[in-house]
Amino acid sequence: MSQKRYFLQEDQIPSQWYNIQADMKTKPAPMLDPSTKEPVSVESLSTIFSEACSRQELDFSNRWIDIPDEVREKYKYYRSTPLVRAYGLEKALDTPAHIYFKNESVSPVGSHKLNSALAQAWYCKQEGVANVTTETGAGQWGTALSYAASLFGLNAAVYQVKISYEQKPYRRSMMQIFGAQVTPSPSMSTRAGKDILTVDPNHQGSLGTAISEAVELARTTPEKCKYTLGSTMSHVSLHQTVIGLEAEMQMEMAGEYPDEVIACFGGGSNFSGLAFPFMRHNIEGRTNTRFIAVEPESCPKMTKGKFEYDFGDEAGYTPLIKMYTLGHKFKPANIHAGGLRYHGAGAVVSQLYHDGLMEAMDIPQLESFDAGILFAKAEGIVPAPESCHAIAATVREALKCKEAGESKVLLFNLTGHGLMDMSAYDQYLRGNLY
Amino acid sequence: MSQKRYFLQEDQIPSQWYNIQADMKTKPAPMLDPSTKEPVSVESLSTIFSEACSRQELDFSNRWIDIPDEVREKYKYYRSTPLVRAYGLEKALDTPAHIYFKNESVSPVGSHKLNSALAQAWYCKQEGVANVTTETGAGQWGTALSYAASLFGLNAAVYQVKISYEQKPYRRSMMQIFGAQVTPSPSMSTRAGKDILTVDPNHQGSLGTAISEAVELARTTPEKCKYTLGSTMSHVSLHQTVIGLEAEMQMEMAGEYPDEVIACFGGGSNFSGLAFPFMRHNIEGRTNTRFIAVEPESCPKMTKGKFEYDFGDEAGYTPLIKMYTLGHKFKPANIHAGGLRYHGAGAVVSQLYHDGLMEAMDIPQLESFDAGILFAKAEGIVPAPESCHAIAATVREALKCKEAGESKVLLFNLTGHGLMDMSAYDQYLRGNLY
Repeated sequence: MSQKRYFLQEDQIPSQWYNIQADMKTKPAPMLDPSTKEPVSVESLSTIFSEACSRQELDFSNRWIDIPDEVREKYKYYRSTPLVRAYGLEKALDTPAHIYFKNESVSPVGSHKLNSALAQAWYCKQEGVANVTTETGAGQWGTALSYAASLFGLNAAVYQVKISYEQKPYRRSMMQIFGAQVTPSPSMSTRAGKDILTVDPNHQGSLGTAISEAVELARTTPEKCKYTLGSTMSHVSLHQTVIGLEAEMQMEMAGEYPDEVIACFGGGSNFSGLAFPFMRHNIEGRTNTRFIAVEPESCPKMTKGKFEYDFGDEAGYTPLIKMYTLGHKFKPANIHAGGLRYHGAGAVVSQLYHDGLMEAMDIPQLESFDAGILFAKAEGIVPAPESCHAIAATVREALKCKEAGESKVLLFNLTGHGLMDMSAYDQYLRGNLY
Repeated sequence: MSQKRYFLQEDQIPSQWYNIQADMKTKPAPMLDPSTKEPVSVESLSTIFSEACSRQELDFSNRWIDIPDEVREKYKYYRSTPLVRAYGLEKALDTPAHIYFKNESVSPVGSHKLNSALAQAWYCKQEGVANVTTETGAGQWGTALSYAASLFGLNAAVYQVKISYEQKPYRRSMMQIFGAQVTPSPSMSTRAGKDILTVDPNHQGSLGTAISEAVELARTTPEKCKYTLGSTMSHVSLHQTVIGLEAEMQMEMAGEYPDEVIACFGGGSNFSGLAFPFMRHNIEGRTNTRFIAVEPESCPKMTKGKFEYDFGDEAGYTPLIKMYTLGHKFKPANIHAGGLRYHGAGAVVSQLYHDGLMEAMDIPQLESFDAGILFAKAEGIVPAPESCHAIAATVREALKCKEAGESKVLLFNLTGHGLMDMSAYDQYLRGNLY
């Protein structure tokens, strides 16, 4: 057997992130202030976000942005993550395809989310901010921010989507281990939460409701508290490009180049992170790689949504964003892939999708878990329900290769492990998951 | 900052295990057949264990034993595991000590146990055995065997200590994901289980009871089913030496050599695995490293037990083993470190301890979790309750270094992550853990 896993030396860990906004021929439509309908500025963004992130958000000229040394030092705790040749999965599928995955589940918090949490927490620290707040769905982003905040001595307040808070109580424990204050959303602690509960006292929560509450907390204490976001925005995608930049070097070590890059899709952070560095070669016309964003069938904003201006949150606190959306009042089904339960797609990815630079696919929950179990047996890693979607799409593509007798190179992102999601697997094993 | 993590290339993964039995000046006392009081032979051992493991168990002459290619190929799925410089922990303790840990938690099943499970399952496969059985405490060994069995196409039946089965239900789910049949022990499915439950219907189980049941299953179906063991025996320690052999090369990459090697201690598998390769240099008189086995205060067979012949299991099915023991009827307290709830210490480690080649230390449960939380915040990895004991001992030693102003090099084994043990952390966070 040839090599199984590829690592980089610590001095090969990227020292810059890749900013695809500089390379896009059609830039994403500007975010608009809902009251004035004017494009938002760095100044207005930075009333909520850190100034550095606000600048990155609207940076359409710099292709490469330096990773602060302090962030890169913390990246060394878990990066490079391994690029893995999935020999076990290939064998199980009896496919001529070469399947690789980037294993972001080895991060301290068990997912890729830490890549951006470290950056956002560091910028807050540097700007003298003492408190950070955010929302979390599955709990992966909340855990990442809690850990990053504790590393840099910040306090973290996390609004967790109520259904995830109940389905995944141990995520809350992890955030608490790292010292964060965790509140199930919608809650009575904010105006937004109260309004939502007034209309629907049994609201299970969604990323939309939790964003409203966290943004409100940041807004009502603007000097002392900044909001951070785990997905959808350009600066988050930017930070996540460390994944794809590493993968590019590691694929080169493996002597291959991906024909297809596949990632699950909630708001777009892991998809962007893996895909954008490879996509730049497509933009430059040097490659013809396919990029596939994989959604849950029950939350199909790309495959079934509309490309229009919409709010990023339930209450309508965020700027208006031109994106593929199911509507900011859309209530996603209570699937276990909590990180994919979001109504919108992020402005950059939406534009790229609209312009035909990438594709989308949606997968039923049961198919995603079938693929997850197959992968667990073959590769020994129990994947997060979100990652199961990428695996299921990869399985589909690998089986097409088998039919066609093609040995394509498939690369997918294993965003996280499923060790906090065993109740979902339990349900699956008992035949109670649909 | 200097380098954080050290990896080996795949071709540097050891191709042989180290057999300390060949180097011991005083060999361990022979295991005795309880009826005849005669030393057990390879033949009698192999009625229960695979023949290869039985031979390894009684091999006192070969220092180096080849790792089968098939096992080494599976090692590549997760090995080398990283050697990590714990800069975060050093800073948190403000100690001049250099702290390193070998991170075995990155294995597919989350602990070092897979190192031996792969070997034992492979030997069974090679010998034409279709079924394997075992016991598991915390669930780490059971998960490892379940996965290894599924990789090599064997059926696995696991007896899980009842208290762990209840405290850690998701470990059962993981074993089931890998296709194993899991039974809480003591159960009514074996004679041994029935006898135990007759005396004490509320028996919470222990490794001793579960071993009795698994051994009975193997004994009553000898041709079709072999028993496998996750700790205490020499062949298990042998397989685990891959940890220390890697660590030795990785410490060399770091330009250091450990003054102290620290590992938690249940039956001895992770301790032996990390320590023995370094200990061979002490035996040869070239180094003077300290080796510290860390027990829970509530199960202190080394620090408080007797060095005498005893059974390895509750029912008295195993051979008699000369070891440090609290008595095979000892019922350990229901601490969360299920993997350390075992009454005996393994013949080789017991002899080494008796001969002064190593030390032992016992740690109260609360101190172990204090250390675990400190480590989680500093290094981002939530450790298994078992590993917390090694961390607590390392903290003690590092604080001694601080007092003395000594920059000793400390190396401990992070045997596994605690993501399946969040209920224990939950209890700790609520102040309900003692």
